[in-house]
Formats: sequence, C-alpha cells, structure tokens
Amino acid sequence: MTIRLAICGYGNLGRGVEQAALAAPDMEPVVVFTRRDPDTLETLGTPAASVDDMEQWKDRVDVCLCCGGSATDLAEQVPAALRYFPTVDSFDTHAKIPEYFASCDEAAREAGTAALISVGWDPGLFSLTRLLGQAVLPDSLEETFWGKGVSQGHSDALRRIEGVVGAVQYTVPRPEALEAVRSGQATEPAEARAKHTRECYVVAADGADRERIREEIVSMPNYFADYDTTVTFISAEELERDHQGMPHGGSVLRRGHTAGGSAAGIEFSLDLESNPQFTGAVVTACGRALYRLVSGGVTGALTLFDVPLGSLHPGAPEELRAQLL
Amino acid sequence: MTIRLAICGYGNLGRGVEQAALAAPDMEPVVVFTRRDPDTLETLGTPAASVDDMEQWKDRVDVCLCCGGSATDLAEQVPAALRYFPTVDSFDTHAKIPEYFASCDEAAREAGTAALISVGWDPGLFSLTRLLGQAVLPDSLEETFWGKGVSQGHSDALRRIEGVVGAVQYTVPRPEALEAVRSGQATEPAEARAKHTRECYVVAADGADRERIREEIVSMPNYFADYDTTVTFISAEELERDHQGMPHGGSVLRRGHTAGGSAAGIEFSLDLESNPQFTGAVVTACGRALYRLVSGGVTGALTLFDVPLGSLHPGAPEELRAQLL
Repeated sequence: MTIRLAICGYGNLGRGVEQAALAAPDMEPVVVFTRRDPDTLETLGTPAASVDDMEQWKDRVDVCLCCGGSATDLAEQVPAALRYFPTVDSFDTHAKIPEYFASCDEAAREAGTAALISVGWDPGLFSLTRLLGQAVLPDSLEETFWGKGVSQGHSDALRRIEGVVGAVQYTVPRPEALEAVRSGQATEPAEARAKHTRECYVVAADGADRERIREEIVSMPNYFADYDTTVTFISAEELERDHQGMPHGGSVLRRGHTAGGSAAGIEFSLDLESNPQFTGAVVTACGRALYRLVSGGVTGALTLFDVPLGSLHPGAPEELRAQLL
Repeated sequence: MTIRLAICGYGNLGRGVEQAALAAPDMEPVVVFTRRDPDTLETLGTPAASVDDMEQWKDRVDVCLCCGGSATDLAEQVPAALRYFPTVDSFDTHAKIPEYFASCDEAAREAGTAALISVGWDPGLFSLTRLLGQAVLPDSLEETFWGKGVSQGHSDALRRIEGVVGAVQYTVPRPEALEAVRSGQATEPAEARAKHTRECYVVAADGADRERIREEIVSMPNYFADYDTTVTFISAEELERDHQGMPHGGSVLRRGHTAGGSAAGIEFSLDLESNPQFTGAVVTACGRALYRLVSGGVTGALTLFDVPLGSLHPGAPEELRAQLL
C-alpha cells in the first residue's frame, strides 16, 4: 500500500516536499497542483495539474500537502482542497492560528475529512518541545532562539523599501543570551534586543540614497526597531553568489527546577542548510501520519499536539518499540 | 475534576512522582502502595497502604503510577495493578521491552484498561527524538550520548565486587565524539570506547586488595571492559559527602541530509540534577495523558509513540494552539 500524495503549490517548499516524498519508502507524489500553466512546471517528475482540476483527482489522491504561503495562499487553498482530500499545511502566522484552525476545522468536518495544520519546525517540532517542557518542568524559564537563518518575512520587508532592488535578512542569536539560559543564569525572559541581532544585506538601486535606506531599515517598527540591526550594501552579483541559500534553525531551551527543587534543563536544536527542504520533510512525514489517522476515522482540524508521533514513522509499531524506545 | 493518582513503590522515583503530582494543578496523589509496613512510610503527606490492599482503592484511584525497578518489580507490580487501575511505568530494560509490552497488553485488555509503559527520558523523551529524527531525516547518523550522570546499573555492578563496601559510577560523554556528530564530521556510529568514559568512585573494605578490585572492575565484560574506565578509591565519608546526588542527562543527535541533499542536524539534550525527580515529572505528566486516553476508550498497552503529546499538558487544546504552536 503506497500513500498517494498531491502537492499543492510548487515553490521551494513544494519542491522540498516532492524530494522527501520521492525518497519515502511508502509514499508517492502523484500530482502537483499549480496556479501556473501545468505544462510549464518543471517538477522532479511528478505530473502537474491545474488547481482548478483538483476534483478530478479525488479518487487518486490520499492526502494533499498544501505548500502555499501563509500570508494569503493557505487560507484559500486548504479549505478548497479539503473538499476532496485530507490536507497538511505549514501555516505559520502564529497569531492567526486559532482563527485558521477554526476555518479548517469547519471545512474538514463538512467534507468528512481532516486537516493537519501548522506543521514544520516552528510551528511544529519547536512547539512540541515547548509543550513537553511545560508539561514536565512547570517551574522554568522557556526561551526560543532562531537562526542563524534567513527570515523571509524580514527579507520581504527590506525589499519593499524604495530604492532596494534585492535583499536578504539573517536572524542571528546572541550566544551569550543562549548560554545564560543554558547555564541557569537567566531567570526571566530576555528582551528582543538581547536575544537576537539582525543582519541585512541590501542591493540598492543605482543612485539611491543609502543613508536614507539604512535609516528606514533600522527604525522600521516590529521588524527592526527593537533589534541591533546591521545593514551592509552589496552588489547584485554578491547577492546572487553568496546569499541564495535558505539556512535556518534555532533552539528551544527550558531551564528551571523539578517540583522537588533540582535544577533541570531541556534543549532542542535544529541546524538546517535548507529550511524549505527540512520543512518539506516534516510536512511529508505528517502526510503519512494524517493518512493513518484519517484511515482510523479522525475528522476535523488537528495540530501536531493531537498526533501520536509513532504515526509519522514508516515503521510498524512493534519495530519502533523494539528499535527506538 | 482532579485526577486521583496512586503511586506504587516509594523509592527515589516514587518520591519524585509525589513531588510532581503535588505541584500539578489538576492531579492529586491519594495513596502510596508499598510492600513495607505502611505505618512506617514517611511520604510528603500522601497516605500509605499495603500493595496487598490495592483492590480497596479501585474506585478511588484514576491512574496508578508504578515506580518499582525494572529488574524484578515492574513485571510483577504492573500486571497486578492493571487488575484495578490504568498504569504508567518507566520500565527501562531496553532489550525486554517487546516482551514486557506483550504481557502488559494482555493484562490491560483482560481488565479493560490501559498501560502506558517505558516512559521517562530514555526510554521516553530520547526515544521520541530518535523517532522524529528517523521520520524526517532518513539519511542520517543517529547517536545517543549519556551523562555526565550516575548509572545505577553500573554502580550496582561495582557494589557486587568482593571487598567493595560502597561505590558510584559516572558515565561521561566524550566532548570530541559529540562534537564530531554535531559538526557532521562523523559519518558512522562510533564504538563504545570512543563515545563515553566511565568514572568509578569506590570505597574498599579495610584490608581489601585494591589492585585486585581495580582489575576486576576494568575487565568486567558488558559493563566496563569496552570502555576507558578510571577507578578512584575514596573514603566512606567522601562517598557520603560528595556522591549522593543522582544527576544525569545526555543528548540525542541526528546529523545528515534532507532528501534534497542539504545538511541538517537535530539535537535534543537534557541536563538533570536529579534523574529520579525528572523521571518522576515525566511519569506524572504521562499519568495525565493516560487518564485522558482511557476516558476516551483506549485499552491495551501503549508507549509514548502512541500518545498525542498535547494530552501530557494540563492546558486545554485551544490554549495550547494559541500559546505554544
């Protein structure tokens, strides 16, 4: 029995999902749904079809992995796909998750299927670590550090500034802040500026006022004003040559005491050369889990908090117990 | 609604469970079952009863947390307790888990209840990390490092040697081996000797032949022969003063590549001043989870691989989604 996967949306994440699905022993990507002309889509071999033709795939797809962006795509794509398939997505606008969950839950229940939302690493594996940490070490400090890695949201914010023709932003954790949590020295959450710095590499248009661009960046509320931000102007060639990767990662730390008063620390870290490829791997494993849950009769919206983690692994339960416990 | 907990066995782990349960907002330890004379048991306030009187507590206990040892206690205690209650245990003899699972599964199904076995940190949280790692990064090297911490099994082995009146053994990971995995330099599993050293602190009986004791230790098969082992003779006073803690911890690392060929690393680490207090906290959170699963109709034996992690946390699902995702 092979789990037949659809991939909806074919950017970096969709490609990462296709790679992971092709490597999985028990899954097969059978179609990529796209808003572009399907004939022009260059996949790794998976046939492309128009998003408007989803219904025709109803009986040939077990789970649809939705790889659109959180800003606008997913809130439309996922309820549409739920009419025909169970869905997995990596919706990551933290503040809007409750609202998004509710709308997916409604669409899934209406169709008698299920939606596993907001998987990936944050939200996702990092969320699981936070949850575990709170469950076993209630009296403790929790901190999340991101990076070093590319923040798409911050890079997009740079590119919207007048006179900027290209840009990338790296979020960089401050090692001393991380060490303060790890060692137990920190006892309350650090402020934003103390935890991360922001490094911007910017290509300015010919003749643009660089000082004005720099000023707009470092004073931009929400994105940069609360951080120590460095702005480095580079050429278009340097941007192309040195900044095309999408590394990311980070750490969730929890440090405090057991109920009996003994010091205890928990740390989960990721170090990723390609954020979309790793996120794609998580999305794909979640496709396996959702297939199994739906086969067992589960309906409605779910998050990773609702998923027995054994269902993410291709192995049989008795193998997992014998080899991994 | 408060979850009423029984604690079966009151050694270091049982005490750790009582501490965690007393601190939990939604649980209450209502009885400690003991093989000792209940009147002599000094708990933190929880009433004690004889293990032979379990049946009388059938309607006053929701979950029984079994805190006996894996060597002999649990295989007896857990099936006995399952006649009256759902059970959680920290059975940690890795090689015997399949057999233990089968016997608990049978006892639980017979009684129409459920047994969550082998929880803690290894097996337990470390197992979950290994599972997640394999599910999302199939093509990778996995290594587990333990310590620095006290190994009860190895300390017991020391104390069985003639002429030894007291002893403690610390398992110590080699930082360079850990760094080799973390950096991606290591590409296959290291041999035992390269990963850990073993430090023994031994109190010899008056007049005992220390050289013979040292030789017996470092050549002991399974326990010490495959490691670089140091033996330090100390006084009974030093043992009492400097080695009464039960620290432990360690790291699960996974390093390799996504299906798309990008480097990726996952690391989960624990740093624990008190192994039994932390394990007790995990067992207690699992008591909460099992209560919820049994309330939902689950029966039979389970491991953490079968448990949606949200059920470990006291918060409501909508709170977890809003605050932790």
